Amino acid sequence: MAEFIPPATRFFNLPSPFAMRRGGSLTGARLAYETWGTLSPARDNAILIHTGLSPSAHAASREANPEPGWWEAMIGPGKAIDTRRWFVICANPLGSCKGSTGPASTNPASGETYRLDFPDLALEDIAASTGALVQALGIERLAALIGCSLGGMSSLAYLQQFPGAVGSYINISGATHALPFSIAIRSLQREAIRLDPAWDQGRYTEESYPESGMRMARKLGVVTYRSALEWDGRFGRVRLDPDRREDDPFGLEFEVESYLEGHARRFIRQYDPNCYLYLSRAMDWFDLSESAGGDAIAALATLRVPRARVLGVTTDILFPSSQQEEIAEGLRRGGSQAECLAFPSPQGHDAFLVDFARFSPAVAEFLAGA
Amino acid sequence: MAEFIPPATRFFNLPSPFAMRRGGSLTGARLAYETWGTLSPARDNAILIHTGLSPSAHAASREANPEPGWWEAMIGPGKAIDTRRWFVICANPLGSCKGSTGPASTNPASGETYRLDFPDLALEDIAASTGALVQALGIERLAALIGCSLGGMSSLAYLQQFPGAVGSYINISGATHALPFSIAIRSLQREAIRLDPAWDQGRYTEESYPESGMRMARKLGVVTYRSALEWDGRFGRVRLDPDRREDDPFGLEFEVESYLEGHARRFIRQYDPNCYLYLSRAMDWFDLSESAGGDAIAALATLRVPRARVLGVTTDILFPSSQQEEIAEGLRRGGSQAECLAFPSPQGHDAFLVDFARFSPAVAEFLAGA
Repeated sequence: MAEFIPPATRFFNLPSPFAMRRGGSLTGARLAYETWGTLSPARDNAILIHTGLSPSAHAASREANPEPGWWEAMIGPGKAIDTRRWFVICANPLGSCKGSTGPASTNPASGETYRLDFPDLALEDIAASTGALVQALGIERLAALIGCSLGGMSSLAYLQQFPGAVGSYINISGATHALPFSIAIRSLQREAIRLDPAWDQGRYTEESYPESGMRMARKLGVVTYRSALEWDGRFGRVRLDPDRREDDPFGLEFEVESYLEGHARRFIRQYDPNCYLYLSRAMDWFDLSESAGGDAIAALATLRVPRARVLGVTTDILFPSSQQEEIAEGLRRGGSQAECLAFPSPQGHDAFLVDFARFSPAVAEFLAGA
Repeated sequence: MAEFIPPATRFFNLPSPFAMRRGGSLTGARLAYETWGTLSPARDNAILIHTGLSPSAHAASREANPEPGWWEAMIGPGKAIDTRRWFVICANPLGSCKGSTGPASTNPASGETYRLDFPDLALEDIAASTGALVQALGIERLAALIGCSLGGMSSLAYLQQFPGAVGSYINISGATHALPFSIAIRSLQREAIRLDPAWDQGRYTEESYPESGMRMARKLGVVTYRSALEWDGRFGRVRLDPDRREDDPFGLEFEVESYLEGHARRFIRQYDPNCYLYLSRAMDWFDLSESAGGDAIAALATLRVPRARVLGVTTDILFPSSQQEEIAEGLRRGGSQAECLAFPSPQGHDAFLVDFARFSPAVAEFLAGA
């Protein structure tokens, strides 16, 4: 299967074999990553960013790849994550299909694409892999760690695995564990892919890509990434112009349906379905509290990070702001100077990708004190 | 296709032809209905109930059919809708498959199942059909009208079509129109059915029933009918016992997934997919405000009903409580003695089917004053 690697991506070869948390190991695996800014001689100005489920390592434009990145508004000279001061690292998560090793990569043992032979993926594996990258870059301690959504969860795993290795921490719309509502939504997304006959137990090809399943999974994702409040103001009950309507009695009629269709079209064939399944399931599995007998606050209190800022939005239905409060409270319990800011952004879970008027100052101000 | 008609259901033949609001007409159409209690000599004790999308007319047990009905806890001697006092009527909605004429019925013009040849269905058609039934029963004015969910919308259409024909009105978790979030969810449910190759443009048979599509549609429905709050308390992150797990790497693992699967299994093959598509789309189309240039409050203010109680719950994400407040406000604007009660039930949209501790007294108390 094709991978979707931005130009001028760098690669880091993971220690081989790379043991996986739930069993098995990877041979000859790699991480795709990019960096911005310059590492200081003391190697004390590094920031690592853990992405959400689908982004590549291309978080912002660079000379080698001037295309805008997925967090272009946040990263660059003079921006909230100021690359004149910071050396910024972003990796495509292990298990993904944008350059890092995952189910769409070739299994060196067989010479075939891994597909469902890829070992079980846990977010702890993502944290272990970025930890190895940071170490290989000669960085003992990150000035800051930033994680968004799935990346917020991976970042909590990072803090757990590398005690004392992070000076300041920003968690954005993350959680210590998935709630049953979020598990239900992701379970349906995975089921939609698996029900598509073209998925064929993961054995699809370019020609037989499970488009219907991925379309449904993406649309359901977008529905839950945004908020009812935003959509009421944005779409209301506006209909598509007749010339944009299909000749199908149940086809697209409302603007909101067309919006979802547009999102789906931009996603399908740009993401590998098996990688989606693996990363989605890893989010459901993640539970920081397992290290403390199911007590999330107690687990958080074992994390050693001097300063933390936990950002979320009140309209997020996947990672509700109560889960952000929980992270801040647990970190404080462990002696961290941690605070939670829950913004009234109307954009739901995706606000950190859109509402820069709120997120930029909150990140900039916190990093200024790092 | 099979229809799913409870035993001892009664039938009312609609005036023929029965003109449909969006064009076309039905010949020889009928409504399935049931009644409880006795119509008073003055014919002034009748209550009509409009159901949600999927229920049959069997709202409560009767001598002729002792099986519990879908609102068994609410209807009966001494219950909130007390059948010692009231003559209660419940019809299966037009367009459904539980005895009333719909896409799964035989088209008398062709002798074949209607399928997608059924004319466009609007909730106003449901209101017109139940209005004809009420008239045929010799009832000029309903003592009370009760509508739940889709039935709440149909009831607003009823009030609009039959001015002065209702004494007291109870709207439960309804709305004057669907919000874009709710349209998006229902659009995905319909897409899941249509994407199932077995749906085959509505030409499935008993043997080729689109099970996958209906499973997905139902699960997505259940996710949005309940609430994240309830599920966190009820399921948390509890796993299925190993002996209930399938040997499938992406199979059911969490209790919440098994709960959804159970709901889906009880629904598929008990409901006709084309009927589902028609009723679901009718909900998206409904907009009471169209009669008043898009102003919902102005449209509500034209409805003539002396007393109204609008019930909803604060955890409903499909018909949020702001939509309940809107109904009460608009009715008051028209001179109705209307109030809105938004309960903190954790069960979301479905609370009226579950949280009888709150809904029973609210209905009983209001009907006592009718």
